Amino acid sequence: MKDSLEWLSLKNVLKIFTETEFGARCCQQRMSSILSSPHSPHLPTYQFQPIALFQSCFKQKTGTPRQFNLIPHSRGYFRLNSIHLVEGLEVGLYLHVIWLFHQNFHIKRDSVNQKETNKEEAAHLQQLSESYAPICITNQMQKTKIKPPRMNGQKIGIFAARSPYRPNPIGLSVCKIRDIVKGKDDSVIVHLEGCDLVHGTPIIDVKPYIRDYDSIPEAPHPSWFENIALKQKNVAQVAFTEDAQRQLEELVPKMKFYHNDLDAVRQVIEEMILLDPRSKYRRDKCTEEVFGFCIDNINVRCVFKDENQCFVCEVESLDKIEQMDKKSLKRRNTEDFARFSKRIRSEEKE
Amino acid sequence: MKDSLEWLSLKNVLKIFTETEFGARCCQQRMSSILSSPHSPHLPTYQFQPIALFQSCFKQKTGTPRQFNLIPHSRGYFRLNSIHLVEGLEVGLYLHVIWLFHQNFHIKRDSVNQKETNKEEAAHLQQLSESYAPICITNQMQKTKIKPPRMNGQKIGIFAARSPYRPNPIGLSVCKIRDIVKGKDDSVIVHLEGCDLVHGTPIIDVKPYIRDYDSIPEAPHPSWFENIALKQKNVAQVAFTEDAQRQLEELVPKMKFYHNDLDAVRQVIEEMILLDPRSKYRRDKCTEEVFGFCIDNINVRCVFKDENQCFVCEVESLDKIEQMDKKSLKRRNTEDFARFSKRIRSEEKE
Repeated sequence: MKDSLEWLSLKNVLKIFTETEFGARCCQQRMSSILSSPHSPHLPTYQFQPIALFQSCFKQKTGTPRQFNLIPHSRGYFRLNSIHLVEGLEVGLYLHVIWLFHQNFHIKRDSVNQKETNKEEAAHLQQLSESYAPICITNQMQKTKIKPPRMNGQKIGIFAARSPYRPNPIGLSVCKIRDIVKGKDDSVIVHLEGCDLVHGTPIIDVKPYIRDYDSIPEAPHPSWFENIALKQKNVAQVAFTEDAQRQLEELVPKMKFYHNDLDAVRQVIEEMILLDPRSKYRRDKCTEEVFGFCIDNINVRCVFKDENQCFVCEVESLDKIEQMDKKSLKRRNTEDFARFSKRIRSEEKE
Repeated sequence: MKDSLEWLSLKNVLKIFTETEFGARCCQQRMSSILSSPHSPHLPTYQFQPIALFQSCFKQKTGTPRQFNLIPHSRGYFRLNSIHLVEGLEVGLYLHVIWLFHQNFHIKRDSVNQKETNKEEAAHLQQLSESYAPICITNQMQKTKIKPPRMNGQKIGIFAARSPYRPNPIGLSVCKIRDIVKGKDDSVIVHLEGCDLVHGTPIIDVKPYIRDYDSIPEAPHPSWFENIALKQKNVAQVAFTEDAQRQLEELVPKMKFYHNDLDAVRQVIEEMILLDPRSKYRRDKCTEEVFGFCIDNINVRCVFKDENQCFVCEVESLDKIEQMDKKSLKRRNTEDFARFSKRIRSEEKE
């Protein structure tokens, strides 16, 4: 009995397994990545399954705000299979949402080490890892510090920051409950606003925000944050050209998150631009180009006239842009810039 | 090549494996619990390893506050292997701590199903599961609602509450940084206060609390919370008998978290009693008994004279109580009640 139990040690299983003729290198890699806890063998590992995948008006990382509540009119929802799970939550309350940075590079890199396998193997292993095996998130991080985007190269520790680059890539947001809608079969859809989650983000927990505990108005700011807050320069003014306004009116009946809600979609576009969604590179090097970002199922194309002023020049269906390759997109953005600039000048004269 | 890739499917691996002479039932059970995602096969599972285990002045669940910041002078710390990880954090700042309810019953039940295996197997599997395999936390929950302890039997949904009973048993606290101490070999110890974590709690992430984002003073309360807050009755007054005060003075040089800090330990004992750490059962049915709770490495024994007044009558080393069985503890608590009550009366007369 003792021997048979001894034998059960999963490490031995792995060893014997790889000695048989079946044991392939890839299989061994997968299994050892599941079974091993590389850095701290004395710490157990825990396995989570999301409670829901978040449905967000932000389809891509570009334009998705870096914090919750920066774009208060952003919208998204998640579905649960029983309305009883949220009994006691009401419209207007705030909710802590705990989620995963699923587009985080190091989850992907850890789940399948693409450098060591060929393309076909990698694709297959990726598929396997998605269907059967947990996606490993290990503590094998090389860096201990990161450079927050707005800090001009200054570094701070991973745990002093909210960066997605962290040992366990967990995100934390506080969103406002916009609506709670009972679905078919007892299911429920919880609609949120003020969210900063990309479409498809796995949610692992939600908890009510209780002001008496969670709101600490006297909490001091980290000194690195004070420096950022002072340096931060946003856009001051947003205007829509006549064309863009008309296009938006035409598209709003086909929208999913802002269906027929023209005021709300204008508001969310303005909120996004006021935060300046451009990267530092785009802000400095691509001034003579149209800047585009998507919200819900539309693509918004705008021109930054100077640092403080932005004109929305075109609004189009997202389908259109999704079929274009990177090169033609770049060409279109340069060509249209002159046309849009001319149009803006003529509208300003009138 | 295609065949060999096909073969790699972990499901097949499992099948072939169990058909060989080595394949034991236990091994199959363990492997399938690692590989399967029981309720939502379309959702991937994610695996986490703690960044640290929390060292807390609360050794047991009894007395550990139900929320952070209820006992502002509570103390604890965690250790990281590089001080660079926390560069940018400073004493006095607040920190979001994301952690696991590791004493939560359904983690343990899921990790090894004790009903289906015999004792010896179960113990061995438990050991294996701790050393090599992830502890599975599944969404297989039976209940959708829970009864918060202070709500007199009223039920609310799991996601409307902060109860430990939730699909992914994740806890969220905001603690104040009391000190940051560089250790040997570049390691660091981060000391916190206002924490509500039991000793040994796995921490999976920490993030700086940023007042501009996290503090929402206008957030409305859930209506169930308003009802609790009104009903909540705490103790109004705490006094120490002369014996207890003298014993505390003798024990404080041997304390770990409150080493030689008599004022702080008196303060934390008072904070704990003012919250009334007794269960409803103890409050209603054991009024003629000494109530005990531990903090750091001492056991505090007190008598609730009426609903509003509590006397600390004895303070002893925790070692003493840990060697006693439940029966002798109960007998001692009943016998000492009369003795302590007499002592309190005589001190009050003086």
